[in-house]
Amino acid sequence: MITLPSDAPLSLQTLAAEFSAGRKAALARVVSIVENQRQGSDLLLAAMHPLIGRARRIGLTGPPGAGKSTLTTLLAAELRAAGLTVGIIAVDPTSPFTGGALLGDRVRMERVALDPGVFIRSMATRGSLGGLASATREVCDVLDAFGVDRILVETVGVGQSELDVARTVDSSVVVLVPESGDSIQTLKAGVMEIADLFVVNKADRPGADRLRNDLEMMLGLRGGMTLKDTPAHHGVQLGAVNPAKAARVAAPRDDAERWTPAVLRSVGITGEGIPELLGTLDRHFAYLEKSGELRQRRRTRLRERVVDVVEQRVRRRLWTDLTTSEWLDAHIPDLESGRVTPYAVADALLAQSGQLLSGAE
Amino acid sequence: MITLPSDAPLSLQTLAAEFSAGRKAALARVVSIVENQRQGSDLLLAAMHPLIGRARRIGLTGPPGAGKSTLTTLLAAELRAAGLTVGIIAVDPTSPFTGGALLGDRVRMERVALDPGVFIRSMATRGSLGGLASATREVCDVLDAFGVDRILVETVGVGQSELDVARTVDSSVVVLVPESGDSIQTLKAGVMEIADLFVVNKADRPGADRLRNDLEMMLGLRGGMTLKDTPAHHGVQLGAVNPAKAARVAAPRDDAERWTPAVLRSVGITGEGIPELLGTLDRHFAYLEKSGELRQRRRTRLRERVVDVVEQRVRRRLWTDLTTSEWLDAHIPDLESGRVTPYAVADALLAQSGQLLSGAE
Repeated sequence: MITLPSDAPLSLQTLAAEFSAGRKAALARVVSIVENQRQGSDLLLAAMHPLIGRARRIGLTGPPGAGKSTLTTLLAAELRAAGLTVGIIAVDPTSPFTGGALLGDRVRMERVALDPGVFIRSMATRGSLGGLASATREVCDVLDAFGVDRILVETVGVGQSELDVARTVDSSVVVLVPESGDSIQTLKAGVMEIADLFVVNKADRPGADRLRNDLEMMLGLRGGMTLKDTPAHHGVQLGAVNPAKAARVAAPRDDAERWTPAVLRSVGITGEGIPELLGTLDRHFAYLEKSGELRQRRRTRLRERVVDVVEQRVRRRLWTDLTTSEWLDAHIPDLESGRVTPYAVADALLAQSGQLLSGAE
Repeated sequence: MITLPSDAPLSLQTLAAEFSAGRKAALARVVSIVENQRQGSDLLLAAMHPLIGRARRIGLTGPPGAGKSTLTTLLAAELRAAGLTVGIIAVDPTSPFTGGALLGDRVRMERVALDPGVFIRSMATRGSLGGLASATREVCDVLDAFGVDRILVETVGVGQSELDVARTVDSSVVVLVPESGDSIQTLKAGVMEIADLFVVNKADRPGADRLRNDLEMMLGLRGGMTLKDTPAHHGVQLGAVNPAKAARVAAPRDDAERWTPAVLRSVGITGEGIPELLGTLDRHFAYLEKSGELRQRRRTRLRERVVDVVEQRVRRRLWTDLTTSEWLDAHIPDLESGRVTPYAVADALLAQSGQLLSGAE
């Protein structure tokens, strides 16, 4: 039940009531308002805040063509079969030239799209007013407050924004395919840093075993050259190396204080590997809870939410203020002639904006 | 000649002197400092400010595989042949999974890379402290202050950041190929908005004529269905529709107050179309100067620079302040329990930060 202040517009009150009653149409409208930072966005998110923290947030990321949408759909179907409700956020920074892969994703997701226990949302890039990661975090919060049990965040993007988005979830699955590259040498450090689980998808193709071996070697799950070849990293090997080895989980040392990313295999077309993936995600969540890392990740998310809101407010207060805008315009000629620098103008602007920035909206 | 304040560190003074003496190694170091916002970045950019405004900034953007790097290289060679110095910025939000196309670009650019009159820089994504467009604008400023005559900004990315980068230049070239898609229907509005010139590259391939026709129709350069079919848009048709028609430039009406994007053709492998492209860029620049739009674009850039600097300073002042950080940490438990919302915490934080935000650094 979300409760808005009594002076909130009636249309928002109605929307909040329908949202609280579990209507999917209301959920879709709230998501739109929040995603586009339209009027009422702050009020709604603030009212939802006490309800947040029940959903598990799972990210799936990987290079284009790795089969993330298929895996997401299969995961959603399996979660539904277990009686859980599912929210899917497909973050797709579509190309301005080709229109992107959105349609393809939607077609692939048809299998679960009509299920009333599944909510699917595609998100494109948010403009300059706050990044994609902030928008995704906010939409996750909405789904969480709505009462969805699991949120699957699929990032189809390339580049930094993908990693930023992955940092906003509880468990990050990195999906790779044998074709991803000749070796894992091309994986940037950021990918290694966010991966809680690796899935080698299309594992029936040539090169899959080699990719798995390389990943395991790198993670110190096997002998040979390792990047993290320290006793602490060998302590916990909760991950299933492949379905046959899934049961062979090493007993945690050091009171389960470390998680070594699991390396799983899957074949999207046949659905092979999906139960193991869900099982490993459950184990990862149990690890997060037991180790205190879940609380830490959620505290970090709350901190980032405050930072986002502060920066949004600063931008809104400064750049929609008519006096500031006119003052800035008046200084353009001096900037043009080179008499003053952007730094001097920025300092002068901030020097006189203390009250504006601290003031109530 | 750039002059730093006398209390600037000696190493920066030396660097500034070498930069002013036209040493390319110093240019490379300054670009690195600015791109990564390292110590001294603000001092250097401020000192360069009076020198900015001589270089012409030309953007090349388009879908992956359109041949932008080849065109950029050919343009650079042609500009060099005309005695001009060239800076190339390849903005490449590389995939964290594959390592991106960087190496490919460098190989293609080998032809001009060893020329002392050419400076090439690849830029990846800048993190959360300011976006890629801001970083590109700043690096352009450095090249401009160094005395480079033409700056070619190639954006290899997909998504919004590409368009943001394109908005920072004087002339935007959108490179398309017949394979780009079945039709121009997939071109997003943002692309149309930024394009000053279209180049149909790989124009010897099937579908090139159709693509050109479609573009011209859309721009109102031909009869039939048009999107901008107004007399004002028909007034100026400075662009060469194809090499054969290059000389047939309609006389401007309304004192050249409108520019209708030209549609050119090129064949990257043979170099066909490059002289026409440069000629049209010159005409576009002449139009920008005459119409006052050049000044307007540069004023907009200066305004955006101030906005960037203000937002950088706000972030730095707030999030590197120990008191703020501790205050924020102290409020996390109340956020966690749902007793307060991120909005309330953000408002309280800003309410007490007026002096911090307005203060001198």
